[in-house]
Amino acid sequence: MKKDQFIVPEGMIYLDGNSLGPLPSAAAGRISSMVEDEWGELLIKGWNQAGWMQQPIQLGDRIGKLVGAPSGTVVIGDTLSIKVYQALAAALAMRPDRKVILSDTGNFPTDLYMADGLIKSMDAGHQVQLVEPENVADAIDDKVAVLMLTQVDYKTGRKHDMMALTQKAQEAGAVVIWDLAHSAGAFEVELEQSGCEFAVGCTYKYLNAGPGAPAFIYVRRDLSETIEPALSGWLGHDAPFAFERPYRPGSGIERMRVGTPSVIQMAALEAALDVFDDVSMADIRTRSVALCELFISEVETKCPQLKLASPRQPDIRGSQVSFRYADGYPLLQALIERGVVGDFRSPDIIRFGFAPLYIDEDDVRRAVEILKDILESGEWDQPRFHKRAKVT
Amino acid sequence: MKKDQFIVPEGMIYLDGNSLGPLPSAAAGRISSMVEDEWGELLIKGWNQAGWMQQPIQLGDRIGKLVGAPSGTVVIGDTLSIKVYQALAAALAMRPDRKVILSDTGNFPTDLYMADGLIKSMDAGHQVQLVEPENVADAIDDKVAVLMLTQVDYKTGRKHDMMALTQKAQEAGAVVIWDLAHSAGAFEVELEQSGCEFAVGCTYKYLNAGPGAPAFIYVRRDLSETIEPALSGWLGHDAPFAFERPYRPGSGIERMRVGTPSVIQMAALEAALDVFDDVSMADIRTRSVALCELFISEVETKCPQLKLASPRQPDIRGSQVSFRYADGYPLLQALIERGVVGDFRSPDIIRFGFAPLYIDEDDVRRAVEILKDILESGEWDQPRFHKRAKVT
Repeated sequence: MKKDQFIVPEGMIYLDGNSLGPLPSAAAGRISSMVEDEWGELLIKGWNQAGWMQQPIQLGDRIGKLVGAPSGTVVIGDTLSIKVYQALAAALAMRPDRKVILSDTGNFPTDLYMADGLIKSMDAGHQVQLVEPENVADAIDDKVAVLMLTQVDYKTGRKHDMMALTQKAQEAGAVVIWDLAHSAGAFEVELEQSGCEFAVGCTYKYLNAGPGAPAFIYVRRDLSETIEPALSGWLGHDAPFAFERPYRPGSGIERMRVGTPSVIQMAALEAALDVFDDVSMADIRTRSVALCELFISEVETKCPQLKLASPRQPDIRGSQVSFRYADGYPLLQALIERGVVGDFRSPDIIRFGFAPLYIDEDDVRRAVEILKDILESGEWDQPRFHKRAKVT
Repeated sequence: MKKDQFIVPEGMIYLDGNSLGPLPSAAAGRISSMVEDEWGELLIKGWNQAGWMQQPIQLGDRIGKLVGAPSGTVVIGDTLSIKVYQALAAALAMRPDRKVILSDTGNFPTDLYMADGLIKSMDAGHQVQLVEPENVADAIDDKVAVLMLTQVDYKTGRKHDMMALTQKAQEAGAVVIWDLAHSAGAFEVELEQSGCEFAVGCTYKYLNAGPGAPAFIYVRRDLSETIEPALSGWLGHDAPFAFERPYRPGSGIERMRVGTPSVIQMAALEAALDVFDDVSMADIRTRSVALCELFISEVETKCPQLKLASPRQPDIRGSQVSFRYADGYPLLQALIERGVVGDFRSPDIIRFGFAPLYIDEDDVRRAVEILKDILESGEWDQPRFHKRAKVT
């Protein structure tokens, strides 16, 4: 759809945009210009004159458009782990009489780790209750303070029904947090319509904002003036440059800011969001489903050794397809050496992300041909492919 | 000392490196190469092949050299506010029987705001006790759990005696946290020698790593294997890519990592630290004292309307000089228009940072000439200079 707006190295078929999106063609220039013309020429004046201070809100609004959130309900900053902590701390404070954080075994570990740390600090008897993804709905009861889920499972691509689960949890009196790490930029999300209280996400996967790009947080509009931020940094203060005591939370979503935003990373994010300006999330989703369906049918026809780990029905699947293969790790390394980049998740999952902005049917067919070739020739079974890297 | 290694616009005398350092000449190229050759060419493989994953520790070690901390005791990441929170949470957990966080009225507000948020979450009866900077030593008693100070006062440049206060606090059984925001890269710091348990700092002031550059945290080596991180993110886990439960803190300083590091910002930090490679902090300090002394004597001679707000003795002053002037705000705006960039802090302080890497005696003399001219001509008293910007 926008292949000419991304840099993908010659000969590479990049199916790992669910982990780190490729470089948008305009990003390098935008970053250079931020560095040389803004930092280099304006120095400290950049905070006002180049608008750095307001960018987290402006970029938040642009992300809001892609995830169904109205203006003024999303702000960017920090990392996803930190944003999870902020959302969960605020959510628990809304249900002081309840002690259960309900999540599932498909949630990304850092979300659960941050919950562990928060409840340890609070030392108020909270616990994280984990159930299998398919049992979440049944596990919701009136003891649940917060339902915290990642919409799309990072291993299998299984997609939760955001509307139904939010409604069920809220009927039971729970507060709901959605992690959109694998949703934002991948398909349509209707945050406001879902009624959920909080959402968080990252911008370096399907939004292509680069390694270490800032995260984002959404707070339902009626709550943003009442929640008390746990990570109460000066840029979330009502008047950061008054340098006053005590902390007084800023207006609305501003209070979810913490410290100085990463201005160079914001330049990359800005260029990355430009790509979405004249394309609809509905069209992206349609194309993504077509690519995933094609990939599944090609793999199942040509590589029957692999077992589908993702849901077969497109409506309960994100924009990635995973297969199981006992020797998935070396197989994936061999694939990467041949230019087909996906990734591996322990113990036996190989994952492939399909981002129609820069992937087309031809890429999918060629990737499966290479996969078939590697499996048939056994070329994956070489010692160098078995050696584990630190980051897998 | 290294003027040719920085970009400072023609006609600008930049005395605001205590707020945001200027662009190192090599940074733009290093950032471009990270963006185009690493993100653009390696994509997800950059985490291993370009060493992104290890960079927070490697850059931490390089900062450690500048602040007297041994290898393996410093890691970079997040913002200073977040690092304060981590240090304070770990420090309070070390003294469960004590409830007082002692700090001073000269501490930067975000450090205190983060403390407010943390103790609210903990809800265990902690309180922040603030005293005047000169009364800190006397306020230390056996109720103090944590002494948390910024070494150099952001308004006045007054510098605490790190050795003496650390010793006194530890003798009283308190844990000590130093904020080195205005120390790192400005003068010699002897973290290890001081014996303090924790330190935090930012890299965008005297270290010149750019707007939104990552912060750093130091943990005394004997503690780093025992403290329990409150912000327990996946990159602080012992095996982040094992995706396992429950959270198990990583080895040593690694556990103070939280989420994905801002890789583009790290490229800027890397180039910024290169500038320090062949210059000693002792030489920087000697030159900084000379510049500050010259500035004070020139201002007091030529602009007697201004009252020195910084300590007169160099040994209790950081690398900045502040003066009081009732109309400091418009005066500073007029100065900026004439190319002399300092900044203003409410209600009447004008501050000037002296970074000898790119500032010399000639700059100091010219800056004071312009200041004198603006004061004598009254040109500062124009409506446009009175108009307050959002970021001051």
